[in-house]
Amino acid sequence: MKECKVIVMGFGAVGQGVARAISLKKDMIKERFNVELKIVAAADSSSSAICADGLDEELLVNTKNEFGKLSNYPEYGSTISGLDVLDAVEYDCLMEATPTNITDAEPALSLTLKAFKAGKDVVTSNKGHLALKFREVVSEAEKNNVEFKYEASVGGAMPIINFTKETLSSCGIKSIVGILNGTTNYILSRMASEGSSYDITLKESQELGIAETDPTQDVEGIDAACKTVILANSLLGIDATYSDVDVEGISNITSQAMDLARKEGYLIKLIAEVSKDKLQVSPRLVKKGSAYDLSGTLNMATVRTDLAGDVSVIGLGAGSLETASAMLTDLISILKVKY
Amino acid sequence: MKECKVIVMGFGAVGQGVARAISLKKDMIKERFNVELKIVAAADSSSSAICADGLDEELLVNTKNEFGKLSNYPEYGSTISGLDVLDAVEYDCLMEATPTNITDAEPALSLTLKAFKAGKDVVTSNKGHLALKFREVVSEAEKNNVEFKYEASVGGAMPIINFTKETLSSCGIKSIVGILNGTTNYILSRMASEGSSYDITLKESQELGIAETDPTQDVEGIDAACKTVILANSLLGIDATYSDVDVEGISNITSQAMDLARKEGYLIKLIAEVSKDKLQVSPRLVKKGSAYDLSGTLNMATVRTDLAGDVSVIGLGAGSLETASAMLTDLISILKVKY
Repeated sequence: MKECKVIVMGFGAVGQGVARAISLKKDMIKERFNVELKIVAAADSSSSAICADGLDEELLVNTKNEFGKLSNYPEYGSTISGLDVLDAVEYDCLMEATPTNITDAEPALSLTLKAFKAGKDVVTSNKGHLALKFREVVSEAEKNNVEFKYEASVGGAMPIINFTKETLSSCGIKSIVGILNGTTNYILSRMASEGSSYDITLKESQELGIAETDPTQDVEGIDAACKTVILANSLLGIDATYSDVDVEGISNITSQAMDLARKEGYLIKLIAEVSKDKLQVSPRLVKKGSAYDLSGTLNMATVRTDLAGDVSVIGLGAGSLETASAMLTDLISILKVKY
Repeated sequence: MKECKVIVMGFGAVGQGVARAISLKKDMIKERFNVELKIVAAADSSSSAICADGLDEELLVNTKNEFGKLSNYPEYGSTISGLDVLDAVEYDCLMEATPTNITDAEPALSLTLKAFKAGKDVVTSNKGHLALKFREVVSEAEKNNVEFKYEASVGGAMPIINFTKETLSSCGIKSIVGILNGTTNYILSRMASEGSSYDITLKESQELGIAETDPTQDVEGIDAACKTVILANSLLGIDATYSDVDVEGISNITSQAMDLARKEGYLIKLIAEVSKDKLQVSPRLVKKGSAYDLSGTLNMATVRTDLAGDVSVIGLGAGSLETASAMLTDLISILKVKY
């Protein structure tokens, strides 16, 4: 039986989801791939739990929920945090789930590069380093001959990167058009169905926990623009960064505009488009009943190909266990290649 | 530069699509995978073209279209056909695209088993042998340590088998529900939008070339039931054959039933469902505006998972180049593993 020791950096919703997903699936992975998966360290922003023999996944989640920090993990709680965690214990793969930062991509960037240099594989849900420095990060992975997987960075549980690379590998990709942000889709769907104003709908979405207290990243299209850059680089080979995307958010959409659209059989959706000629996130009219007529927090993407025509995927764009499932699928694909 | 020599058996729409797809993509495959792809034989039901150094893909298609049979291929045309083609030339992979036969699965079954025994990989678009003898065929592939891929057998260019296996590998699959037959979906969509009768709509669909002269396999749900069996075996590990599926077609659906459904906000669709408890193809009411409200010849499937929630795919369920693209993707996945 081989072992795969992972460090989970970032222990918010996604990091906790990774721990839960590993807890749920480690027996399946043992049976199917003959690999024993162990979390040897998990870290939040200021503390960690570290044990070379493996931590209890459920106890990690319970400790974080009860005490707010992992240093309270029985016996193995620690005040070590940040980059130092990667020096504190032997590991094989970094599961990087810190919050996205599109100013300087930290701490994801430093964590990822440090893991690469140590010859470790990395699976990430983070968009910051990919949106700002895609080429640099990917070429560092190649230079160090390690695996680097980032399916969870776009669309949460909606497979789009591996989907396009693996299941459409015979096809040339012309464009990808989709709804890549669940929060704005929820707000726009409610504005359309209820005729309510942007401000009121945003407030209600915040109360429901669907929109963040500071909703800027979602409603101004920043989150969708990051994903647009990641798709452009990874699937269309376009060497772009965040500043190359033409971005407009949804905060100026009025209920009057919604009404006008509806009367003509249209909806307003925040649409991301990736092609050789266009990197754009903007509100657009879409036909009622079309593939883009998607409600709630779902994400969707239509991949336009040369051989297979249009192929679309729809899935949950966020969620703790859902996003973690994409990271675990990435980890399994590494196990298949390396173990 | 390595070589991969393929034999294309069956030279109708799909077989010709394979030749065209290889013609379009052989340079990409050479560049990306360092493998030179060659068609060393192609065969229709009564003749073939065979050349160990490789045939011209476009000339194969043109010969078939002009003369109706491949024996007219310049210099390398032959009267060899059927199983004998596999003895006539050295090859690495059989691309099997003969018509589906759900009585005895021939000639696909014998061709496939013969290739396995000779240690050759097989990519198929055929449903017959999979629907009747899935376990037997797959275990023969395993016994002979060869690759056997069949994405194109379900959903044409809509990836569902590799999609579920590769991009949802962390998830347990609870069920798959979808629209797996484009012809019936086209007929039902037109009946709904035009209020026309089944008989008239079928006749018009036949004139457009969407329904076959003998439409039985499609309209009686046989085609969808074959696909249901393939998904049950390959993705849910259910040991089932064609006779285990509860099948009802669309030929008894009246325009009155359509009308009644429409008035209540529903459509009638031919829905396939695969779960541990149910293998069923039947007309069902689906909500207008739901994921199953799909028009034209598209296929769709919703995969219900334990970790990632529901994930759906939509794509073209048929078409020459489209279905061939799924076979070429399968071939590429073999190249990645073996070459």
